[in-house]
Amino acid sequence: MSSIQAAEKIRLFIAPSPRNVEDIFSPADLERLHALGEVFIHADGPVSDEIFNQHAADAHIIVGQLDMPSERLTRAVNLRAIVNVEGNFLPNVDYAQCFRQGVRVLNVSPVFAEPVAEAALGMAIDLARGISHADRRFRNGTEQYGLDANRDAFSLYGAPVGFIGMGDLGRAILPLIAPFRGVVKAFDPWLPPAYLESLGCEAAPLETVLRESQVVFVVAGVTSQNQGFLTRDEFASMKQGAAFVLVSRAGVVDFDAMLDAAASGHIRVATDVFPEEPLAPGHRARSIDTVLLSPHQAGALSAVLREIGRRALADIELIARGLPPVMCKIAQPETVGLMRSKPVAKS
Amino acid sequence: MSSIQAAEKIRLFIAPSPRNVEDIFSPADLERLHALGEVFIHADGPVSDEIFNQHAADAHIIVGQLDMPSERLTRAVNLRAIVNVEGNFLPNVDYAQCFRQGVRVLNVSPVFAEPVAEAALGMAIDLARGISHADRRFRNGTEQYGLDANRDAFSLYGAPVGFIGMGDLGRAILPLIAPFRGVVKAFDPWLPPAYLESLGCEAAPLETVLRESQVVFVVAGVTSQNQGFLTRDEFASMKQGAAFVLVSRAGVVDFDAMLDAAASGHIRVATDVFPEEPLAPGHRARSIDTVLLSPHQAGALSAVLREIGRRALADIELIARGLPPVMCKIAQPETVGLMRSKPVAKS
Amino acid sequence: MSSIQAAEKIRLFIAPSPRNVEDIFSPADLERLHALGEVFIHADGPVSDEIFNQHAADAHIIVGQLDMPSERLTRAVNLRAIVNVEGNFLPNVDYAQCFRQGVRVLNVSPVFAEPVAEAALGMAIDLARGISHADRRFRNGTEQYGLDANRDAFSLYGAPVGFIGMGDLGRAILPLIAPFRGVVKAFDPWLPPAYLESLGCEAAPLETVLRESQVVFVVAGVTSQNQGFLTRDEFASMKQGAAFVLVSRAGVVDFDAMLDAAASGHIRVATDVFPEEPLAPGHRARSIDTVLLSPHQAGALSAVLREIGRRALADIELIARGLPPVMCKIAQPETVGLMRSKPVAKS
Amino acid sequence: MSSIQAAEKIRLFIAPSPRNVEDIFSPADLERLHALGEVFIHADGPVSDEIFNQHAADAHIIVGQLDMPSERLTRAVNLRAIVNVEGNFLPNVDYAQCFRQGVRVLNVSPVFAEPVAEAALGMAIDLARGISHADRRFRNGTEQYGLDANRDAFSLYGAPVGFIGMGDLGRAILPLIAPFRGVVKAFDPWLPPAYLESLGCEAAPLETVLRESQVVFVVAGVTSQNQGFLTRDEFASMKQGAAFVLVSRAGVVDFDAMLDAAASGHIRVATDVFPEEPLAPGHRARSIDTVLLSPHQAGALSAVLREIGRRALADIELIARGLPPVMCKIAQPETVGLMRSKPVAKS
Repeated sequence: MSSIQAAEKIRLFIAPSPRNVEDIFSPADLERLHALGEVFIHADGPVSDEIFNQHAADAHIIVGQLDMPSERLTRAVNLRAIVNVEGNFLPNVDYAQCFRQGVRVLNVSPVFAEPVAEAALGMAIDLARGISHADRRFRNGTEQYGLDANRDAFSLYGAPVGFIGMGDLGRAILPLIAPFRGVVKAFDPWLPPAYLESLGCEAAPLETVLRESQVVFVVAGVTSQNQGFLTRDEFASMKQGAAFVLVSRAGVVDFDAMLDAAASGHIRVATDVFPEEPLAPGHRARSIDTVLLSPHQAGALSAVLREIGRRALADIELIARGLPPVMCKIAQPETVGLMRSKPVAKS
Repeated sequence: MSSIQAAEKIRLFIAPSPRNVEDIFSPADLERLHALGEVFIHADGPVSDEIFNQHAADAHIIVGQLDMPSERLTRAVNLRAIVNVEGNFLPNVDYAQCFRQGVRVLNVSPVFAEPVAEAALGMAIDLARGISHADRRFRNGTEQYGLDANRDAFSLYGAPVGFIGMGDLGRAILPLIAPFRGVVKAFDPWLPPAYLESLGCEAAPLETVLRESQVVFVVAGVTSQNQGFLTRDEFASMKQGAAFVLVSRAGVVDFDAMLDAAASGHIRVATDVFPEEPLAPGHRARSIDTVLLSPHQAGALSAVLREIGRRALADIELIARGLPPVMCKIAQPETVGLMRSKPVAKS
Repeated sequence: MSSIQAAEKIRLFIAPSPRNVEDIFSPADLERLHALGEVFIHADGPVSDEIFNQHAADAHIIVGQLDMPSERLTRAVNLRAIVNVEGNFLPNVDYAQCFRQGVRVLNVSPVFAEPVAEAALGMAIDLARGISHADRRFRNGTEQYGLDANRDAFSLYGAPVGFIGMGDLGRAILPLIAPFRGVVKAFDPWLPPAYLESLGCEAAPLETVLRESQVVFVVAGVTSQNQGFLTRDEFASMKQGAAFVLVSRAGVVDFDAMLDAAASGHIRVATDVFPEEPLAPGHRARSIDTVLLSPHQAGALSAVLREIGRRALADIELIARGLPPVMCKIAQPETVGLMRSKPVAKS
Repeated sequence: MSSIQAAEKIRLFIAPSPRNVEDIFSPADLERLHALGEVFIHADGPVSDEIFNQHAADAHIIVGQLDMPSERLTRAVNLRAIVNVEGNFLPNVDYAQCFRQGVRVLNVSPVFAEPVAEAALGMAIDLARGISHADRRFRNGTEQYGLDANRDAFSLYGAPVGFIGMGDLGRAILPLIAPFRGVVKAFDPWLPPAYLESLGCEAAPLETVLRESQVVFVVAGVTSQNQGFLTRDEFASMKQGAAFVLVSRAGVVDFDAMLDAAASGHIRVATDVFPEEPLAPGHRARSIDTVLLSPHQAGALSAVLREIGRRALADIELIARGLPPVMCKIAQPETVGLMRSKPVAKS
C-alpha cells in the first residue's frame, strides 16, 4: 500500500520560550524533528524581526508563542501551522489571517487534561471524605475516630455530580468518576445536549447544576463572555455541604464570594488557581478550614513536559505529510477570539 | 411462574449490639423484617442464657454477634443463619459446629468495600500529587507554585500498582484505578493466578509487588499466618518515592518499620489504621511530613450503617425463602478459623 | 511471609468420563496434578464398587461424575471435594451428606459462561439486524439493499434488554451489551433487587421483562420450580418484533408455543437448545424464517475443554492447601436439590 | 451568566435530495429549524441557478448536496456552512474556496458509525462461531451438535483483532470488542501511534495487522491513495481461518482475490459492500460457504434517518450562534480532496 506519502523535506522554526527545547523534546523526539528537514531553534529571548525574517519567514511550521501579527503572516508564504507549546491561545497571533491563509494554529492543552483530572478527583475525594482535614487534626492532636470523624463526610458513590464546562478537562474527569455511578449533569453553552449525552452526561442549565450537585467541577476556561460569572448568588444556590472544585481559571469566579461561601460553612472548596499567584502572605484563604489550597500544581507535572513534545511532534509529522493534526488543540475561527486566558509563565 | 416460593413464617432474634437497630434498619426495612414472621429484638447488653433460651433458641435466624458456643447451637434446632452486622468473623461462634449443622454464618463486610476503596484512592492520589502536603505548606505560608510544587509528585496515570490481598476491598479499588491504565499486580496467597487474571490483574509474588509498584494498596486482613508480615525488609525493597496505602488492619505491618521508611524519605505512607486507637498524643507519626494520617474513618460513614441493614435484610429474606444468601460475606470452613481481627467497637 | 502453607501430599481419584483426561488437562496441568500427591486415573467405563473401594475410598479429592451415594461417602473419610468436570449438578451425589461431612461439590459451569455469552450476543444481533436472514436471501437471489433490506431491523443501541435468570451466564452477557447503553431489566427469583442493581440491572417481575424488552435473553437453568414456565401467554405478552434468545435449557420453555410465536411473526427467536437433540429431520423449526437455529454449539468450543482442566486444577490446588475453591461453581445446600438438568453427553 | 449569546436570525436553504425533509427531520426538529430564522426548503430535483440565486445565494447555512462550484460560493457572501445530509464528501463542492471563505463543510457520517459497528460485530461473531453457517445446515438437515458443530469455530475472547483504518467507524467498534479482551492492532496511515494508543490500540504496519489478527475489520474509506490496496498478497498473508469483515467500501479490496481467499478455505469473509450493487444474479459470491453476504444494510437503518436530522440540527444551531460545529464530520483542507467515495443513492 502506497498510502503513506513520502514526506517532502520541510523547514521548522522553533522558539519554545518560555520553555526549553530539551525540557519538552526528548533526544529521540528531537532527532525525529530533524529528520523532517531543516530545523532552526531560537533558544532564548524574543524573536526579533531580523531573526524572524532570516529564519522563520520561509518556515512551513513554527513552534512557539512568538508574535505572529499580520505582517509576519503575510511574509510566511509557506506556513502551514503554528504550534504553541503552551496550553492557551493568546492574542499574540492574528488568527483571522491564519484562517484565511489556511494556517493551522495549535496548542498543547490536551496534555494537561489527565494530570489536572487526577488532581481534581483527588481534591473532590478530599473534600467529600475529609482527608486533609483529618490529617490536619491528627497533627494538632484533635483527631476523632470512626463515625465521629465522619460527621460531615459524604461519599462520591451515587452522589450527583455537576460540571461547569465540558472540554478536554471535563472529558478527562468523566472516566475517573464513572465508577462512582452518580448522575452527571453538565452545563456548557458551547455544546449541544446530544453531544453531552454522548458522553454520558445530562445537559442542564447552570442553575440546575449548582442546585442539585453534591460535587461541582469547574473546568471552563475564561472567555469574554463568562468572566466572574460565578458570583455570590451562584454559591448561595448550591446544596449545603456540597464540594466546589475549581481547576480551570480563577477568572470565572468571584473569588471573595467563593471564600465567603466556604468560610460560612455553606460549601467546601478546593482551588488550584488564584486571582494573584503567589497568593498574598496573609491572605485569609490560607486559614479557612473548609478550603483546600493547591498551588497551581494540578497540571504542572514534569512528566507532562515531555508529553508536550510528543504531542507537538506527532502533529508536526502529520502536517509535514500533508495530513490534518489530531493530537493538539486546534484553534477554531468561531471561538479563538473569545478566549481570555492570561499568559501564565509556565502552566 | 410459581418459582418464587411463598415464604413460610420464620422467627428472628436480633441483638445488634454494639449497633442500634434503628441505626442500621430503616423503618421500611424493619417493617419488611417483621413481615417475615416473629421478630424479637434484644436492644441492650449481653444476651444471657435466660434470654437466649427464651427468645433465641427456637429462632431460624439470629442477627448480631452474641456468643454462639456449642451448647447454644445444639439447642438452636431451627437455626439456619447467624448474621453478624459487623465486618469481621470473631471467635464468638463455634464455626465448626455451624458447618456441621448447616448454619450459615454471615457478616456485612462487603458494605465497607466501596467507602474504603474511595478513601484509599483519595489517599493514593494525595500521596502521589502532594495534595494535603501542599495545602499544609499554604497554611504556613511556604507553598511553591506550578512545577516547583511538583518536584516529588508523580501521576497515577500509567503507574504500576500493586495489591497485597485481593478480597472485596481490593476488588472495589480495581474499577477506581482502571481509568489510570497502569499495570496492576496482586499478591494473594489464597487466590489462584487465573482468578486474579480474570480481574485484570497479574498474579505476582509479594517481592515483585513491593519492588515494582509505584503505589501499593494493602487490603489484606490479619490472619494467623500473616501478622506483622510487612517488615523493615519489605519496606526497604520498595521503590524510592513509592506510595504505601494501608487500609485494612495495622496488624499486617511492623508499624514502626513503616514509619521509619516514611520518615527517611524512602516511601510515602497513608494509613487509616493504627496499632492502638486513639494514637498516643505525642506519637511521632503525627509529625512525619511523608505520612498521611486517617483516623479509621475510611469505612465508617453513617450512610454505610443503613446499607448494613439493607444487605442483612436482603440475605435474611433469601434465607427465609430457603435460598442461599448472596449479599453478605459467608464464613468458609477452610478460612474462618484463620481470621485474627480484633473486635473493634464499631468498624 | 509464611502465609502460603506448604501443601501436604494428597490423594486424587480422577474418573473424567464422559470426558478424556487429556482433552481437559494439558500436559503441564497433568504434571501439576501429579505434583499434589498420588493420582489415580480411571479412564473408562463406570466406577465399580471394587474400583471405588480400592482407589477412591481414601482419596482427598474425587474428580468426575461417578455415583456418590451415602455408602460411598461414608467410606470416603478423607474426602474434601468432588469436582465434576461437567456443567451441571446431577442427582448422582448425595448432596445432603456431603454438606454434613464438609465435602465441597463443584462443577465447571463457569467455563461455559463466556463462550455462550458471545454466541448469545451474536444471535441477538443476528435477530435484530437480520444478518443470517439477509445472507439466506442473497443465496437464493432475493436480497434487497440498504433501507429496503432493513424494513424489520432494529438496533441494540438504546434498546431495552431483558434477562430471565442472572447467573454466571447472564453476568457474562452484561459486559457485552453494556456498550449498547440500553436499560437492562432482569428477573431472577433467587436474587434480591440490590444484587441485580449492583450489576447495573433493574430488578423486575417476569411480566415486565417480557412486555418491555426488545431483546430477551433466557439464561435460567431448569429447576423443579420453573419447568416449562414460559408458555404461550408469556410469548403473547412480548413486544411485536422482539427478539427471544434461548441459550440455557429447552426445558424452561413450551417449545411449541415459542415456535408458534415466531412463525406467526409476533417475535423472532434464536435457540441453541432443543427438547430432543438431534432435532427430528422434518421438524417444522427447520423452516421457520424467523427462527435462528444453533445446534447446542454455544458453549461447546474445543478451547473450552482445556479451560475446564485449568479451572478444576486451580480449585484442586486450593483445596489441597486447605483453602476454599474460587474458580468452579460450588453446590449450595439450599438450591442443589432443585436443579433439573438432564445429563447431556458432553455439554 | 450571559454566555449563551442570543442567536441572531439566520437564513437556511434546505435541498435535502436524495433524502426527504420529513424523513430526516422530526416535526419538533423542523420547528426548531424554523425558529432559527427564515427557512427555504427545495424539496425535489436539482437546484437550478435560478433557484439558487433566488433562495440560496444569501443563506447563512445550506443543507444538502447541491453543487457548490466557485461561482455559487462567490455569490454566497453570508454563507457559514454547507451541511451535507449524506455520509460522504463528494466532488460537488469547491472545498478550497470554502476554506478560503471560512465556510464549514459538514457531512453526517458519524450517524452511521454505531449501526455499522453493531453489524460488524454481529458479522465477526457469525464468522467466528459459525452462526449463519450452522443455521443453514439446520435448514438442509445436515447440522451437527455440540463439539462436532464447532470444528472450525473460534472465540473472540482473547483473539487478536486488527483494524485497517481507525476513523469514526473503527472507534465505534472498539468499545464493542473491548469486553473480549483481545489485543487490538490498528493500521491507519493518517493517524500517529500515540493517537491509536490513546484509543487502547497498538499502532502496527498493515502487514502485521493482516498476519497476526484472528479478526480483521476493514473500516477505511476509499481515497485516491488506497484504491484496491488489499490484493491477493494481502489475503495470502492472513492467518489460516481468520475472519475478514469489510464494512466500509468495496473499492479498497480486490474483490475477486478476496472471494478466492474465502473459497479456498484460507479465510472467512463477511462483506456489506460490493463492487456493483445489486450483485449480478449468478455471481459466484452467492454460493461460497465461507462468505457472509450483507446487502449494504449495515448503516441503513430507518432509525438512523432521524438521527441525521438531529445531528445536523444540533450543528446548525451552534453555527447560528456563532459557535463551531461538534456533531457532524467536518471537511479538513488536507484530506477532503483525497476522498473517492462514489455517491451511493442513499447510504
